[in-house]
This record gives sequence, C-alpha cells and structure tokens, in this order.
Amino acid sequence: MPYFDAASSAPLHPIARQALQASLDEGWADPARLYREGRRARLLLDAAREAAAEAVGCRPDELTFTPSGTHAVHLGIAGALAGRRRTGNRVVVSAVEHSSVLHGAGDSAVTVPVDRSGRVAADDFVAELSADTALACLQSANHEVGTEQPVAEVATACRTAGVPLLVDAAQSLGWGPTPGGWSLLTASAHKWGGPAGVGLLAVRKGVRFAPQGPADERESGRSPGFENLPAIVAAAASLRAVRAEAAQESVRLRALVDRIRTRVPELVPDVEVVGDPVHRLPHLVTFSCLYVDGETLLHELDRAGFSVSSGSSCTSSTLTPSHVLRAMGVLSEGNIRLSLPTGTAPADVEHFLEVLPGVVSSVRERLGAPTPTQTSGEADALVVDALGKLCPIPVIELAKVIGNVRIGGVVRVLSDDAAARLDIPAWCAMRGQEFLGEEPLGEGSGYLVRRVQ
Amino acid sequence: MPYFDAASSAPLHPIARQALQASLDEGWADPARLYREGRRARLLLDAAREAAAEAVGCRPDELTFTPSGTHAVHLGIAGALAGRRRTGNRVVVSAVEHSSVLHGAGDSAVTVPVDRSGRVAADDFVAELSADTALACLQSANHEVGTEQPVAEVATACRTAGVPLLVDAAQSLGWGPTPGGWSLLTASAHKWGGPAGVGLLAVRKGVRFAPQGPADERESGRSPGFENLPAIVAAAASLRAVRAEAAQESVRLRALVDRIRTRVPELVPDVEVVGDPVHRLPHLVTFSCLYVDGETLLHELDRAGFSVSSGSSCTSSTLTPSHVLRAMGVLSEGNIRLSLPTGTAPADVEHFLEVLPGVVSSVRERLGAPTPTQTSGEADALVVDALGKLCPIPVIELAKVIGNVRIGGVVRVLSDDAAARLDIPAWCAMRGQEFLGEEPLGEGSGYLVRRVQ
Repeated sequence: MPYFDAASSAPLHPIARQALQASLDEGWADPARLYREGRRARLLLDAAREAAAEAVGCRPDELTFTPSGTHAVHLGIAGALAGRRRTGNRVVVSAVEHSSVLHGAGDSAVTVPVDRSGRVAADDFVAELSADTALACLQSANHEVGTEQPVAEVATACRTAGVPLLVDAAQSLGWGPTPGGWSLLTASAHKWGGPAGVGLLAVRKGVRFAPQGPADERESGRSPGFENLPAIVAAAASLRAVRAEAAQESVRLRALVDRIRTRVPELVPDVEVVGDPVHRLPHLVTFSCLYVDGETLLHELDRAGFSVSSGSSCTSSTLTPSHVLRAMGVLSEGNIRLSLPTGTAPADVEHFLEVLPGVVSSVRERLGAPTPTQTSGEADALVVDALGKLCPIPVIELAKVIGNVRIGGVVRVLSDDAAARLDIPAWCAMRGQEFLGEEPLGEGSGYLVRRVQ
Repeated sequence: MPYFDAASSAPLHPIARQALQASLDEGWADPARLYREGRRARLLLDAAREAAAEAVGCRPDELTFTPSGTHAVHLGIAGALAGRRRTGNRVVVSAVEHSSVLHGAGDSAVTVPVDRSGRVAADDFVAELSADTALACLQSANHEVGTEQPVAEVATACRTAGVPLLVDAAQSLGWGPTPGGWSLLTASAHKWGGPAGVGLLAVRKGVRFAPQGPADERESGRSPGFENLPAIVAAAASLRAVRAEAAQESVRLRALVDRIRTRVPELVPDVEVVGDPVHRLPHLVTFSCLYVDGETLLHELDRAGFSVSSGSSCTSSTLTPSHVLRAMGVLSEGNIRLSLPTGTAPADVEHFLEVLPGVVSSVRERLGAPTPTQTSGEADALVVDALGKLCPIPVIELAKVIGNVRIGGVVRVLSDDAAARLDIPAWCAMRGQEFLGEEPLGEGSGYLVRRVQ
C-alpha cells in the first residue's frame, strides 16, 4: 500500500529502529548522573550529538536536541529575538514558511512574497532587512510544493547586514547539508525517517542567543526537559544512514517525480502542477485539479490505497486553502501533494498514474463539473450566486455559465468561500479568461471575470 | 548491578518496551491525516489517552501529552496563570517543589515552608491563599525525601478559596491516583518505567486555562509539536501495568525501605535519616552521613556497584545543597537517596547494607573525620578558620575542636561554603550542642556553637 506523504512523516528507517531498540537498554538513565548507567547515557548522548552535528555542519556544542521540529523553531526564534532585543524586534520571513515559523515569528513579522513557483526573490528578501531587524527566517525548501529557496544568497546578505538568519531545514536535511552561512538551523527527525520526539536546533557560536521560558539545566539551558535519549540516538543514526543513501536515492526519486510532473497533466485535463520544476526537493510534487473537492479526492485515493496530503481548503479545519498556495496565487482546489519516501518503488508510482485519472473524473462527475465545450452566449453580464457554497462549487458554477456571456461580457460570482479568492483568478489564468477583481459584499465578495475567448 | 535511582529515571518496564516496539510499525504517521496510516495513528493516540486518563482519574479530553514532565509543569503553570490573569498573579508553592515547578512559578512565587520531615502544614499553605492568588502548586510527594504532602486537604481548601491547585504527581502517579479535587495535574512517564519523551498534563474542565507560546494545533492547542506516538503508547501501557502491580509491589518495597531506615543508623554512626517515616513514597529513602563528602560517597558506592543519587552540595553544579534539604533544615553532607525500582531484589538491599558501613568509614578516614571521644577543654572560646574549605570540612573541623572548649564555651566557625549554613546547625542538633546563630562576614559567615555537653 503506497504511502506518499513522507513530508508529513516518513516511515521509520530500519537503522532508526535498530538504534532505538539498542539504546532502550543503554539509554534510559539520566545522563546528568555520575553512576555507570548515567555515564553510559551521557556517552550515547555525546556520540549522537557529534554524529548529528557532523551531518548538520556545525560543532557539537552548537547543537541542541529538542522534543520536535516545532520546538526547535519556537525555541530558536524566541532565543534569537531575546538575544537581539536591543537591536529591535523586526522579524523578516518568507510568506511560505512552515506554520511553526510564522506562529513563532508572530503576527507583526514582515512577510516577503513569493512568485508563482513558491520561490522568494533574494533581492526582495534582502530589501526588507533594516537596522532594527532582529531576525530573518527562510526555509531551505518548501514543505508543500518542494521549491528550494535562495538560502545561500540570502545568508550572505544577512551576514553583511548583521542580521542572523534562521533556516528551517525540516524538509531538506535528510538530503544534504544546508548551504550558506546560516546562523540558526532547525530540523525534525521524523521527516527523515527518524523517530518522533526529536528536533534539532543549531545556533552558531557568536550568535546572540538568550533562551526563553523557565530555566532548566538540560541541553545547555536551551531545551528543557529530560532528554529523550533512545529517540535521539535513533535520530542521529538514521540521519547518517539517509545521508549515505541520499545522492543515489535523490536521483532516483527525482526521476519518478519528473515522470509524475509530466504525466499527470497529460493524463488528467485541467490540472496545474505547482512548484519550481528544477530547483526543488527530489521527492515532492504538488498539483491541483480543477473542479475537484480535495477532501473527496483524498478519500478516493485512500480507498484506492494511496496516502497523500492536500492543501485544499476543504481538507483543513480552517476551511481556507494552505497559506503556501495562497502566497503563490495558484489553484488550490483538488490539491494533492505527493512526497515519496526513500525506497518508493517505480511500480507504485505507475500504479498511481493509472488510478488517478479515473479517480479525478469520477469526483468531477459526481460534482457536476462542466465539460469543456465551446458555447457562444449573448448576454452582456451574468451573476452566479454561489453564496454558502464551498470549494469547488463556485468555480464549477462559473465555468458552467461563462459560455453564456458574449466575448467581452462579464460574469460576477458571489461567494463567501475563502478558496474562491484564490481559485477564481487561478481558473481565469488556466482558461485564458480575464480576472477583473474582487468587490467586497456584506458577506463574501463578488468576483468579476471577463470572457476573453 | 543494583540501580537504586528510580526517582531520577526508572528502567524501561517490559510492557513499555513491548508497546513501543509494536507501535513503531503502526504509530509513525501523522494522526491528523485522514489516510489509513493517519487513522491508525489516531486510534493509537486516542486509546493511549483513554488509558492514561483512566489511570490519572480524569476525562480523556482533559488530558494532554507533553514531551516531558518538565514541559507538563511549564505549560500547565503558564496556561493556568494566563487563564487567571484578571484575578492576579500570586502563585503559592511549597518550598520543596521540584525545580521545574519553582522555575515555572518564577521568583516572585510565595513559598510555604516545610517541617523537618519535608511536609508542608496544610494550614500554613491555605493561609497564603488570597483574593489575588492565581494558582497554587503542591506536589503529591517529594522527589528527594519521599514525604507525602497533604494534597487532599489543600485541594479542598483551594476549591473553597476558588484557587486552582496544580499537583505535580511525578513521583507518585505510578503508585496510584492522586487524591483530592486537584485542578491541574502533571506527571512524567520515565519515572514509572515508561519511556523518555512523554509527560502528562491534566486540566480539569472548568479550570480557566489559556495556552501560552506560539499557536499550534496539536494536542488541542495545549502542547505544540508532532506527537511522539510510539512513546505515548508505551507510556500509557506501562502506566496501566505498574498500576496493576502497585498494591503488591508497594507493600514489598515499603518493607525494604523500612529495613534500610532502621538498619542504616544502626550500622553507620552519625547518620540522619530524613523524610517522613510513615507518610511517604513506598520506594524512596534518604539519609545523610556526617563527616562525609557526598560526591566521594557516590563514587565509592558506584565502584561497589550501587547507583544512587545525592542532594549534597558537592554533587551539584551550583555547590549548594539541594533546596529540599535546605527547606527541611536537615543535614546535607554525605546525603544519599535510594529509590528502588519495582522488582528490586531483597538480596540487593542486604548487599547495600553490608557494603555501606565500610564505604562510609573509609571516606571518613580519608577525610580525617573526628572519632567521637569525650574530651574536656579549658578554653572559653575558639575560632575555626574554614574559609575556602568545602563540605564536609567545616563540620569536621568544628567537631574536632568542640572538645577543646569548656562546657558553656563557644566555637566560632568561619566558612564561606553554602553547605555550612545547613550542616553546622544540623550537626548541633544531632550532637546535642547549641547553635547560637550566624554572623555575616566580608566573605562567608561566622557560625557560633556553644558546647552544652
């Protein structure tokens, strides 16, 4: 049963399992104690820190183990901000950072936009660095669409500006070290096949850093709580293991992803493949299918044996599309992310490509999606009242009536669904129609679309 | 090789190991996802929460899994304080809480003293509850000396006063549910033989609670970061397992501890057994040996195959005795805590009792500890200059010269060692001499002792 959601959590690597089981016997005692069980635990902890630091590209005393990647991010941002309190409190982040970074940075953070591929322009990012900037945060690669960010370039500019750069390397650390002169780096073991319960926070010597929260002597005062030693040992061992396989496996998975990127639009009409086609993670691909409800799509793929994720609004508790897709301005309806675990069999990918077209068309059929027929209407203007209807209905209704206005005529779609703001313009771009803009209503908005062809 | 430090971290319970290994296969996926691996993970998480909640004595939706007991305490205190911000910011704690509680409560917390057994008087505690008290914190039982606190009585009074009570049940939860109407409860799995990486935070419905720190959707917004699922499953399974054995095992260990409490003072001269002899944890006993350096004692016991811990100043990074021993006003030098894991063999305890006297006397011999001879001095007063000398030297020097002053004469010990403040009065109490008080010096203090016998 193919699991294609490694970017959420990767299956445990065999080496992680081995290391975890071995260290259950040796690593349960308190490494701060002086007796033999404590000394053994300390040796394991020190060895794990050395191995992980080597993979990260930092000194062991620059590396802190945290209970999760989220903790690493929260602790890293809070400590860096407190260490730079005298400089200011401005934080600069890309618009497509992981939610842990955006929540850690707070609502007042300055957000640098991205292009349609999800990539931030280094110049745009650097332009936001000011004298009172305490911290900059830029991911190594995006978790939803796989696009790599210009980390090395931004790191150099940050160094020149005297601003520390925190790089969230959660999605990329298993594939290789993070380029450039970053100041802080965060990562999460269960993304590379390590166990849950382990994050990494690296803070370069010389970076001003003041740990926040109640004092605790563990992990040099940077991450409170008793060390999760067997999991830490397993995390470090599996990081070494996946790194040893990374060069070969990344080439293999990159080819599989390239095949998906090429074949899906050939096999399924009205699909937008998103994210940078070249500067991207090797194992991750995301596309969106017009006229499809993401939750139903996920459900049908699950029934067919495929585990994937989605940034569609209807699959989230907030009923809004993922902030990444919003920042990119791409279609969000029928959104599917595949992230292939190491070892993914080509046959599983082929099977997915066989199954997908039927799944999408059956969902479309059920929803009454429009068939692409060229009609020629006479009306100057039409109104579609889709108030109270959720994604993908507003777009489907729009597509159904666009042929009823003349070329040059305007359709006004009334919608209070958050996804419409993203998906109506995206539909226009995909279908070669003109999006004129959004008018606020009492509740919801009117979206104006001019028929061009 | 007997390990007698379960209160620091207990060896992994066989059930915890089994559950951990089993859930490595089923529990690595994201329980927030809708596909089969996610649903399986969610089922495991829900089942673990139900089992743990039953053992705690709360509803499953009142229970949050955290990455450690320390996190549970920090998150619990911060959330309760924020929830009660309008009431005030006064926090009342006992003087012998775990350092995570004291650090979480902050320096401005009101500290309720304890008696020489380490027990807080319920009346003293309740007297500190005022209209602006946001939170009260009282441990179920002390982690260093085993004394049980009057939690049920204090909980009733807190309820009457409308003040939420947080009970740190880290040391007792494996032995049984916490009595009384507490509002918040915290615990740590590796103390009961569960794995590291799991703490519990229970917050009763109706308790005002506002989670602090950056927002995160995990664990109902109360504990950020990806769930450490295999460890959570193992924690819940082992809690049920130790509870099933608790009634029988507590009787067995209580008898072993009673034997240690009785035999140690018979076998070793100049020993003070501390903590309540009756109202105590079943598996924990603490005593202090005059004229002994705790670090050397630990080292020698480790060489003899025994792993124990100590609250002596010389075994801590701060060079001060544990705050618990200080609050109790008991001897801290040569301090040893034994906490027996479940399954401890009586033969191992007997072996410890055989080995201890020789170890203590060899350490005393090496340090030049005074032999208890009755001498009759003539001097009215003497000064012992022990400045720059660490525990147990100032007490040893005092003991050596006390015989050189007449009955009624005074010895003045000059010392800048933090342990002297505790150990010189404790020595006086043990030897039937009169402690007159402490005079501040430029550096250190003068401690005045009148010879009475």
